[in-house]
Amino acid sequence: MFYKRNHGPVPVLEDISLYRLEVGGLASNRCSLSMDAIKQLPKHTVVATIQCAGNRRTAMSMTRKVKGVGWGLAALGNGIWSGARLSDVLEIVGIPKYSRVSAYGGKHVEFVSVDKCKEENGGPYKGSIPLFQATNPEADVILAYEMNGEELSRDHGFPLRVVVPGVLGARSVKWLRNINIIAEECQGFFMQKDYKMFPPSVDWDNVNWGSRRPLMDFPVQCAICSPEDGSYLDGKGKVTVKGYALSGGGRGIERVDVSADGGKTWTEAKLAQGPKSGLGYIPDDDDHRDKWAWVLWEASIEVHLPADIVAKAVDTSANVQAEHVETIWNLRGVLNNSWHRIHINGTSKQLHSNL
Amino acid sequence: MFYKRNHGPVPVLEDISLYRLEVGGLASNRCSLSMDAIKQLPKHTVVATIQCAGNRRTAMSMTRKVKGVGWGLAALGNGIWSGARLSDVLEIVGIPKYSRVSAYGGKHVEFVSVDKCKEENGGPYKGSIPLFQATNPEADVILAYEMNGEELSRDHGFPLRVVVPGVLGARSVKWLRNINIIAEECQGFFMQKDYKMFPPSVDWDNVNWGSRRPLMDFPVQCAICSPEDGSYLDGKGKVTVKGYALSGGGRGIERVDVSADGGKTWTEAKLAQGPKSGLGYIPDDDDHRDKWAWVLWEASIEVHLPADIVAKAVDTSANVQAEHVETIWNLRGVLNNSWHRIHINGTSKQLHSNL
Repeated sequence: MFYKRNHGPVPVLEDISLYRLEVGGLASNRCSLSMDAIKQLPKHTVVATIQCAGNRRTAMSMTRKVKGVGWGLAALGNGIWSGARLSDVLEIVGIPKYSRVSAYGGKHVEFVSVDKCKEENGGPYKGSIPLFQATNPEADVILAYEMNGEELSRDHGFPLRVVVPGVLGARSVKWLRNINIIAEECQGFFMQKDYKMFPPSVDWDNVNWGSRRPLMDFPVQCAICSPEDGSYLDGKGKVTVKGYALSGGGRGIERVDVSADGGKTWTEAKLAQGPKSGLGYIPDDDDHRDKWAWVLWEASIEVHLPADIVAKAVDTSANVQAEHVETIWNLRGVLNNSWHRIHINGTSKQLHSNL
Repeated sequence: MFYKRNHGPVPVLEDISLYRLEVGGLASNRCSLSMDAIKQLPKHTVVATIQCAGNRRTAMSMTRKVKGVGWGLAALGNGIWSGARLSDVLEIVGIPKYSRVSAYGGKHVEFVSVDKCKEENGGPYKGSIPLFQATNPEADVILAYEMNGEELSRDHGFPLRVVVPGVLGARSVKWLRNINIIAEECQGFFMQKDYKMFPPSVDWDNVNWGSRRPLMDFPVQCAICSPEDGSYLDGKGKVTVKGYALSGGGRGIERVDVSADGGKTWTEAKLAQGPKSGLGYIPDDDDHRDKWAWVLWEASIEVHLPADIVAKAVDTSANVQAEHVETIWNLRGVLNNSWHRIHINGTSKQLHSNL
């Protein structure tokens, strides 16, 4: 189970032997890499959560209508991604590790898909990240050809996609065709006219897209996955509440607090990671295990039905979630990291599914 | 005006010609550097805000009493710091830039003061940061001997202090005597028994210090500096509200929202930085100007006195502040980044000073 999002139709690659990744722009060299050539580079594996910026948009729309796909709380997924390090590929075109500026003034790395999007007037989906992030091996940006130990599927970007850990999914471009070293950030629609966050006071009649930086790292957030919002539970007593928590930019999860009285009193959840959570992979000892991956958590709490259950996470930089969605409402409905609230009823076994 | 905080008496250095910085531990070499030797290394300048983790502790104590110095909203300051890069000093003892582990298994860099603290049983104040941060020139960690273009004063760490930008002030050790390359993080009191953050459910009767990571990066926050809480303003109409905003870990400030109705409607503040704010220094073009420095802001808003004015900031990772201090209350009263609220009265010119 892993969410899928594409802005144009999913491309079909008929003959993989014809595939080439073209790398060029403001670099000393250019190169054209076949899939075989990419697979001959050192293989690097990263456990990372990829998240659509519109995760939990439906809940934001309940406050005031926003435009965009109506996502519940599952527009994200945690994967084991394997491929070539982007920093290794950039060395081939003459850009060393930890570069801020290329020899020809490049400061950003643009990823261009092979798909065709109406927002780009039929052109391909694209996005960029700063050159320093691209050439920094610690940022773990990879060109992935495997997901969870298997060949990447078409829906997830076959034959090659970018994975930019800790950054909203919009920059992890699928069906990668070109990598361009460019002077300024990518001018594509999805960098300049979408995936930006405005204050609650800005709506479609007064929006100025040029006034904002493109969104990159996502903020601290969590959600309750079980029980589902609107569930009916029998009896009273303890309920096991489970969910996920994550933060962007390599920040880990310090803790998750759960409340059965709508936020008056709190119980700290147990965090599960690595083998215990079934991820099957423990990253390098030098990294905290939640650097790029979500943390699964659970808490056993006393409830008196009907009950409002609330969860909120704190990241390793002590960032917290917004209590009320109204205070972070934005016209594109992105990055809804308000406290997650569910209501549990106290009678029959009937289940209502959450949006 | 710059806050001062020391855990032991401020040391006196009688004769600077006798001063030596000792660098050693799990490194290939050791070295002993005079101030002259340190000043011969390339001089690097960083504009950075240093913040006590206890900033705004007094406001947290109003909810439920916490231990610690009662700070208002000025236990922080923005300075222009000049000195040697820590990463250059570590190269002298054989540890290259961007190292995660030294040749002898060092993973942390410990800073030891010359002062004497009762919490350390008369030993010196100390703290540590990960080796990767210490050897990463982009993290801008410096050994500073100048503050705002002048020789460091005794209160601020003469003759040499560490400045770890984006991290709570407790790691920016003053009166630096030793730098030790160590395998595990520093075991000193201020790393292990203080400057950690617990959930609201933990109090002094059930605290387990070993269950938490030491606090490092600080979270997104802002405060209203003018008008002061409890001020009396004449008449009605527009009021100019001014303050600061900052976030840790190199994250910039995306925006500040101000409300004159306690949070129902918001006005976006204007952000001032660089020359406009009187900082007198514009960092490297490649860095955003708010990477380590606070952002000063102001907003002209319509108020109907008496009024509750509220401010909240959003950082470039879309992190927000907590609405209510109760939800982030912690027994040490650290990192109170709840929305800042002031009350303005509507009659005489009498001023009440804020705690």
